[in-house]
Amino acid sequence: MTTDVRTTDVQLDRSTRTEGGRVVRVEITPVAFRDPPLLNAVGVHEPFALRSVVELVTESGTYGLGESYGDLPHLQRLQRAAAELAGADVFDLPELRRRVVASLAADDGRGGHGMSGMVTGSATVDRVLSPFEVAALDVQGKLVGRPVSDLLGGAVRAAVPFSAYLFYKWAGHPGMPADSWGAALDAGALVDQARRMVDEFGFTAIKLKGGVFPPEEEIAAIEALRAAFPDHPLRLDPNAAWTVDTSIAVGRALDGVLEYLEDPTPTIEGMAAVAREVPMPLATNMCVVAFDHLPPAVRQGAVQVVLSDHHFWGGLRRSQGLAAVCDTFGMGLSMHSNSHLGISLAAMTHLAAATPNLDYACDTHWPWKDPAEDVVVPGVLRFQDGAVAVPTTPGLGVELDRDGLARLHEQYLTCGLRQRDDTGYMQRVDPSYEARSPRW
Amino acid sequence: MTTDVRTTDVQLDRSTRTEGGRVVRVEITPVAFRDPPLLNAVGVHEPFALRSVVELVTESGTYGLGESYGDLPHLQRLQRAAAELAGADVFDLPELRRRVVASLAADDGRGGHGMSGMVTGSATVDRVLSPFEVAALDVQGKLVGRPVSDLLGGAVRAAVPFSAYLFYKWAGHPGMPADSWGAALDAGALVDQARRMVDEFGFTAIKLKGGVFPPEEEIAAIEALRAAFPDHPLRLDPNAAWTVDTSIAVGRALDGVLEYLEDPTPTIEGMAAVAREVPMPLATNMCVVAFDHLPPAVRQGAVQVVLSDHHFWGGLRRSQGLAAVCDTFGMGLSMHSNSHLGISLAAMTHLAAATPNLDYACDTHWPWKDPAEDVVVPGVLRFQDGAVAVPTTPGLGVELDRDGLARLHEQYLTCGLRQRDDTGYMQRVDPSYEARSPRW
Ligand SMILES: [Mg+2]
Ligand SMILES: [Mg+2]
Repeated sequence: MTTDVRTTDVQLDRSTRTEGGRVVRVEITPVAFRDPPLLNAVGVHEPFALRSVVELVTESGTYGLGESYGDLPHLQRLQRAAAELAGADVFDLPELRRRVVASLAADDGRGGHGMSGMVTGSATVDRVLSPFEVAALDVQGKLVGRPVSDLLGGAVRAAVPFSAYLFYKWAGHPGMPADSWGAALDAGALVDQARRMVDEFGFTAIKLKGGVFPPEEEIAAIEALRAAFPDHPLRLDPNAAWTVDTSIAVGRALDGVLEYLEDPTPTIEGMAAVAREVPMPLATNMCVVAFDHLPPAVRQGAVQVVLSDHHFWGGLRRSQGLAAVCDTFGMGLSMHSNSHLGISLAAMTHLAAATPNLDYACDTHWPWKDPAEDVVVPGVLRFQDGAVAVPTTPGLGVELDRDGLARLHEQYLTCGLRQRDDTGYMQRVDPSYEARSPRW
Repeated sequence: MTTDVRTTDVQLDRSTRTEGGRVVRVEITPVAFRDPPLLNAVGVHEPFALRSVVELVTESGTYGLGESYGDLPHLQRLQRAAAELAGADVFDLPELRRRVVASLAADDGRGGHGMSGMVTGSATVDRVLSPFEVAALDVQGKLVGRPVSDLLGGAVRAAVPFSAYLFYKWAGHPGMPADSWGAALDAGALVDQARRMVDEFGFTAIKLKGGVFPPEEEIAAIEALRAAFPDHPLRLDPNAAWTVDTSIAVGRALDGVLEYLEDPTPTIEGMAAVAREVPMPLATNMCVVAFDHLPPAVRQGAVQVVLSDHHFWGGLRRSQGLAAVCDTFGMGLSMHSNSHLGISLAAMTHLAAATPNLDYACDTHWPWKDPAEDVVVPGVLRFQDGAVAVPTTPGLGVELDRDGLARLHEQYLTCGLRQRDDTGYMQRVDPSYEARSPRW
């Protein structure tokens, strides 16, 4: 309460306005990386996963990185948006959004959702904006000398826990040799898969991608995992493969076993009907994937945990808006993952670190990626005890590996895939296959 | 889609991590500034308004400013919190919050709400955290060379519109000469007051603080304002002075005249009952003043506009969380004001500028403050066409006027006031006066 102190107002050179954040060039590079034959409710992962790498170059020469889906319609949207961004200031995120909106004015929003038809209700503007917003924050951080987590309010955790993400899978892609994980088509093989994943990465939570085999088998798999890993929180995600009645039956059967049950059934109404009858929280990254979905979901008590995903929620800052909504309405917050590279992992880690109520272990497909394939210089992102330390260098903390990028772009050009199609791939193996939701 | 471009990775000196943000000292200075006898639903403003000025000094010598209520219990909380902050990093806002929470562990939360008993439901942690968070963001901005609006996502507007804030008032404080505004005890005088305020500041919206005279008189005042200012959006705020029935009657009488009706009646339930029957949006800074209040308000459809206020919503970033909730649930967002100085005006301006859906003209008591009294160096904050240009220099963009601070602190010491008490002051003039909500 003294007022006679005279603070010496030392002027650091940083106390002048930072300049250099105007965009001079945007590179959008589609890449493909190898992906194992992971089974899910709509089919099976193709031999390559597609992603887009966004590099936003500013007048200072500083560049920022973003990563997004690689489906062709999405790639084309990114390119149209990128064409509008020259001259925008990376500190002016609203202007970035306005320009993305303008680039989509004549867009019908069809296709390019990046999730093989499983999730199509996300907002096109938010999907397209996301990698540019992340890249802009990366540049911001580099220009001002702070990690992205600080730009998001500061990290509440020094390392972000992720969960082991188990998949039923074939031994290898049809006509190709088995991969190192081998087949996982029953409970015993899943326990082996979990054991390896937990041993190698230290994961402290386990998620099973279900919706592949009849529910009884998946219940048995969860029970086997519970027996093998008595202390790991367990999650089961059948991607809306079940009817309301089946979901209720599974939920009751797994009372006390699951941390949460993820998207057992389609639609907010369906989830609400299940939520009223099962003992565990229901989680979603399917029926609540845009801000418009939150009011009806809250009104109906449909979900107790939202899996955020900055790739379709409009970037890191808008994902924090989602976090505020979840916090306010008593919903938990976890994080969804698609097959992704290091830029996305860095962005996910900064976001989760700076979001206090994002306190479930996040999903990641990381263990399924060949460590030799990436677009960032290796070494920064490492799993220890199932968690990734939040980079503390400016920006996202990852640097572009231009040779890696060129290799994965070449692979994109030669692999022939232009849009994720788990169902079509399955049908080439089994012509009688049909994607149905619900299936059981 | 070219990948052969080799970006020259120019390393600016800012691409190293910014240092210098550790707090070495916090000064909390209570100040008093002259305030006219403004009438409201619980009494009348005393001759001095009290505020606390927070100065957060970091190891680099850079300081940050915050401003908050001056009521003694609040001041003491700020001092207890300040004692915990040495060594904290201004970029680590979660740590700031943890320390504030710790400092309040034994606090019963009573008193010090700063609103003369009109609003007591805000969260103590959020009230106490707010000025420190603002000061931390001010330092952040100075250290990284960006205005606070950029730290909040970037300004969507270069200038923030405020509304003319009309009050019924006495000519002067009892026993003192009339102030330059003179008395305003009827519609005609309010129109004159509005005319002067609009002429001097250029305001494009007008708000009347009501709850002072019987509702018929205040309806007549609004109608007189409408006749005199046919194009200005008009608002009426009786601070919950009316019953549900009275509120409905007033709302119907002012159909088509009011932009919004603010807190006609107490409680979320009361507001919901009014909302069902009146044609205009209902606004509040009384029944929804903390995150806990949002779910019941949304469920009941009680309010259509929330007046945010970073002083009790936990600072600028948490106010943006409120903005996300309002945006998601289709509620409008405006901004509440108490009597304040330049630090608060700067913070309010940055927040409103960087919050896209805060698109109502904000409240401010600024015209009621003697321009000679402030704690910031004059010149930065100016009204043009009713709006304040967002400072574009690093941080909040305002500098501490240490002589002004010393003068207003001396005034605090001599004025004798230690807690805002509009009702007690009124009772010293009129011993029969009682604060009642609702009154009519
Ligand atoms: Mg899922
Ligand atoms: Mg009010």
